[in-house]
Amino acid sequence: MTQKSQGAPGHDRRSFWAWGNESTEPTAEGLRSAAREMSKRFGVNLSPGRPPDLSAISLRRPRISPGGAIAGFCSTSAYDRALHSYGHSFRDRVRKFRGEFSNPPDFVAYPNDEAEVAAVFDWCYANDCVVIPFGGGSSVVGGVEPPAEAGRVATLDLTRLQRILEIDSTSRAARIQAGALGPAIEADLRPHGLTLRHFPQSFEFSTLGGWIVTRSAGHYATNHTHIDDFVESLRMVTPGGVWESRRLPGSGAGPAPDRLVLGSEGILGAVTEAWVRVQARPRFREAAGVVYSSLDAAASAARSIVQAKLWPANCRVLDEGEAGTNAGMDGRQALLVLGFESAELPQSGRMHEALEIAVDSHGKVVERSGDESGGRPGAVAAGTLPATQEPGPVERWRQSFIRMPYDWNLLLGFGLINDTFETAVTWERWPEFDRNVRSAVAKALKDVCGGGTVTCRFTHVYPDGPAPYYTFTGLGRAGSELEMWAEVKSAASEAVIAGGGTITHHHAVGRDHRPGYDAERPELFAQALRAAKRAVDPRWLVNPGVLVDADPDSGAIAGFQNR
Amino acid sequence: MTQKSQGAPGHDRRSFWAWGNESTEPTAEGLRSAAREMSKRFGVNLSPGRPPDLSAISLRRPRISPGGAIAGFCSTSAYDRALHSYGHSFRDRVRKFRGEFSNPPDFVAYPNDEAEVAAVFDWCYANDCVVIPFGGGSSVVGGVEPPAEAGRVATLDLTRLQRILEIDSTSRAARIQAGALGPAIEADLRPHGLTLRHFPQSFEFSTLGGWIVTRSAGHYATNHTHIDDFVESLRMVTPGGVWESRRLPGSGAGPAPDRLVLGSEGILGAVTEAWVRVQARPRFREAAGVVYSSLDAAASAARSIVQAKLWPANCRVLDEGEAGTNAGMDGRQALLVLGFESAELPQSGRMHEALEIAVDSHGKVVERSGDESGGRPGAVAAGTLPATQEPGPVERWRQSFIRMPYDWNLLLGFGLINDTFETAVTWERWPEFDRNVRSAVAKALKDVCGGGTVTCRFTHVYPDGPAPYYTFTGLGRAGSELEMWAEVKSAASEAVIAGGGTITHHHAVGRDHRPGYDAERPELFAQALRAAKRAVDPRWLVNPGVLVDADPDSGAIAGFQNR
Repeated sequence: MTQKSQGAPGHDRRSFWAWGNESTEPTAEGLRSAAREMSKRFGVNLSPGRPPDLSAISLRRPRISPGGAIAGFCSTSAYDRALHSYGHSFRDRVRKFRGEFSNPPDFVAYPNDEAEVAAVFDWCYANDCVVIPFGGGSSVVGGVEPPAEAGRVATLDLTRLQRILEIDSTSRAARIQAGALGPAIEADLRPHGLTLRHFPQSFEFSTLGGWIVTRSAGHYATNHTHIDDFVESLRMVTPGGVWESRRLPGSGAGPAPDRLVLGSEGILGAVTEAWVRVQARPRFREAAGVVYSSLDAAASAARSIVQAKLWPANCRVLDEGEAGTNAGMDGRQALLVLGFESAELPQSGRMHEALEIAVDSHGKVVERSGDESGGRPGAVAAGTLPATQEPGPVERWRQSFIRMPYDWNLLLGFGLINDTFETAVTWERWPEFDRNVRSAVAKALKDVCGGGTVTCRFTHVYPDGPAPYYTFTGLGRAGSELEMWAEVKSAASEAVIAGGGTITHHHAVGRDHRPGYDAERPELFAQALRAAKRAVDPRWLVNPGVLVDADPDSGAIAGFQNR
Repeated sequence: MTQKSQGAPGHDRRSFWAWGNESTEPTAEGLRSAAREMSKRFGVNLSPGRPPDLSAISLRRPRISPGGAIAGFCSTSAYDRALHSYGHSFRDRVRKFRGEFSNPPDFVAYPNDEAEVAAVFDWCYANDCVVIPFGGGSSVVGGVEPPAEAGRVATLDLTRLQRILEIDSTSRAARIQAGALGPAIEADLRPHGLTLRHFPQSFEFSTLGGWIVTRSAGHYATNHTHIDDFVESLRMVTPGGVWESRRLPGSGAGPAPDRLVLGSEGILGAVTEAWVRVQARPRFREAAGVVYSSLDAAASAARSIVQAKLWPANCRVLDEGEAGTNAGMDGRQALLVLGFESAELPQSGRMHEALEIAVDSHGKVVERSGDESGGRPGAVAAGTLPATQEPGPVERWRQSFIRMPYDWNLLLGFGLINDTFETAVTWERWPEFDRNVRSAVAKALKDVCGGGTVTCRFTHVYPDGPAPYYTFTGLGRAGSELEMWAEVKSAASEAVIAGGGTITHHHAVGRDHRPGYDAERPELFAQALRAAKRAVDPRWLVNPGVLVDADPDSGAIAGFQNR
């Protein structure tokens, strides 16, 4: 068997444990400095953690060896198996940092084309082997982790399917292979004057296919937020064959086939390519920051703006804590971040309309930049405020957003418990929802860690409700982080569901969100989805344990028990 | 058994054969006048038809009699059974006019609440009886017709579930029973300053539940066009129990459960209620008509406007023929109809931007009306053209659109073949798609009728393609209309599918569109849908024959063969 790996040592391949590549892994000094900062914050003396060393990790022997038609593009190397053992959730980060790789996949397949994807399903079906489709591996919900109960597990890494296959500038659409990462997609579209503009926080290390099966939400804060609205058609390889939908701008022919794949989290098969709607690259841009005395006042402004259907590209609300930590504000005011963009039309009129509403809602404009010059390079920023050399809160927040997953690499090894959860809820439940969720999480943090912080922002805003995104932090005990985290996470999920929210607006369900998801989705839909899965994966070998369990009496389960 | 009927004779109940109520059924003079007009148009001498007389129609004896818990709200009257024998397709209109009611349902159930809906499924399951959910009966695709092969058929009329149950003005949403007809929904929302603004041509006689299960598209020509985007959550009664989704502004938790119900055309059960997103009633309105030398020029303007994301509420394109027939133009120019509306913001700026694009695309503004006064009653219409007393082409077209289904009541009995079909296709296939579709339909009309007309409009426009809507007319032979129509319809469907379109953008699949639909949807999706149906309707008794056939080997089919 060959040992083709995703990257050779020496090249700048993905870190097997940290967010990013090996070249951006935390340095010893970075870890020391983070420990110092956290020591100061919590008033204790924390020792920096020690990152894992791949050569010191002894992985379980592969329980099966890939052979036959697939041997040529599979790997059983420790690096590949470790890299595909986890996603990037808090649980994953902790376990990786500790060097706990007790349940790696037995091998990793790197198909080069769709025929090789199909060959993997065939081989796994012939060998009772579970298959886990894997894109960029950025799951924060246990969506790509080998199930503990499975006897044999292959991870199907799709990142070699990374090309743009076709561009239709007339209809503004592109056919892109599912394993393409965010930056590659943008780089390939740029020469055509086009952009997908799907920028989840995981952008650098997540794939089109991953976005599709997890219903990723990205750049656009209003109107078309999820990738769902950008998918024209797709192809998916399943154990039962190829599922291909027709490329259409819209249709009313039966239930939308793509909508059963969107959010399917790899339980139906592996998406191999999709036609997606792209945009002309924006030439006109307007941005503004508006401060409010409270989150509720800012939320109310955001609601009025989105209900007026102004459809800003950006309409994010940061509570007092987030505005303080991530936008350089004083921690006593909330911030509304607004942005408009267009390839065709100046946006200052729309920004003006939005700011009128924002100010009427008792806001104060603290930052404004824009380009009313038709996009000529070097055009002078236009706005109601004088330009300064210092970045304003909006730009500070943007930089912080991109840096965040890298920062979190540093916060490991000394017992810190820090995680995020997100939801969506109708306006009439706000702000009571927020009070109850914060109070439940604060109480759990107090019980578990003796205290901590909870902050909130809106990542997306709809006419009928916001998508709040919470961050919590507490100091636990090194070595007990997972148990302590689980208590806080569970309190958060219960409060979200009890308050009428969804268990996830764009982080997906995976294995970690199952209890909340099971309470949320119609039971009959779960039965229908189970039946649909069985129709394309009769032996229930594809990413089992995610979204739905097999019926206990299906008799079609090979080699493992349900959770 | 009681004989409760939908309406008592003497009241203005629905016509059992014509579009509309009994009070608006064609008069003898109306039919004569239509025959004269068509005689003139085709240069022949056509005799007016003679409408059907219910008392002269002898219906098959009911093969089963509703009893037990459901007897109290069921009817076996000739009126109810005739009324529920068909929808309003061309085939239906012809058969009804002829008095052909050879396959009526055996009885019609009129449940008053959800418990009675469930009782109908229970009773039918216990009695091997097919159940056909029925809203306003406006299907134009054979979606509510008893299957010929079924041994026993009940129609489940949902129009007594007609109330608005709850209004949430904060989130702009309303919980509405599925049997509510369009006008009742609007009447009940109006006092709250709200509107659903879903105005399909069938508005007067179609229901919220019908819109949901057929993925109806209505008022909005761009952005959120289908009812899909307005559904927050829904409840559906199935033989397997109640399917209820959580009310959410957005979610990423698994495949969207509602999207499996949207477009399910009654094969999974009966939707009983839904939370839908509503709008504040528009106060600001702008309308304009722009003429072009050709459909292609107008199409190109529409493409530029929608790709600029101006999201006009109205953006319809009429080809030379439609603009002549329905908008009072000269038949040599195409018309672009634009409209903007808002409850919050004056729309003249957006209309100005759209008209700049429209004029740049070689259009000439011929009509413009608007209200920039903030919605004060009696405000003077603003525009680039002087106000006139005569309605312009935009207003003429609007009136014609509403009147159309009534007009078609008159065109029966003398062999006229007139029907519409609609689709959606990506821009890069246009205008070749149009040429091929027209040529296929024109050829079929020539072969079958010796000639005829084909016209086209865009009902909806997306950044990646239009939704063209075709109307064809030819003079066939009275008595042979159905066979002649079938040839033309089949040529149209084949051309649409061959050209890369969808078999339906918003008319649904039913039974009539099955061949095109079967060619269009992924085969594996059909398998998944079949499995999902079996999960909630294991005996395959709910609207069988629509969308998918039962597996030949399912062994779960009661009382009838598949088509």
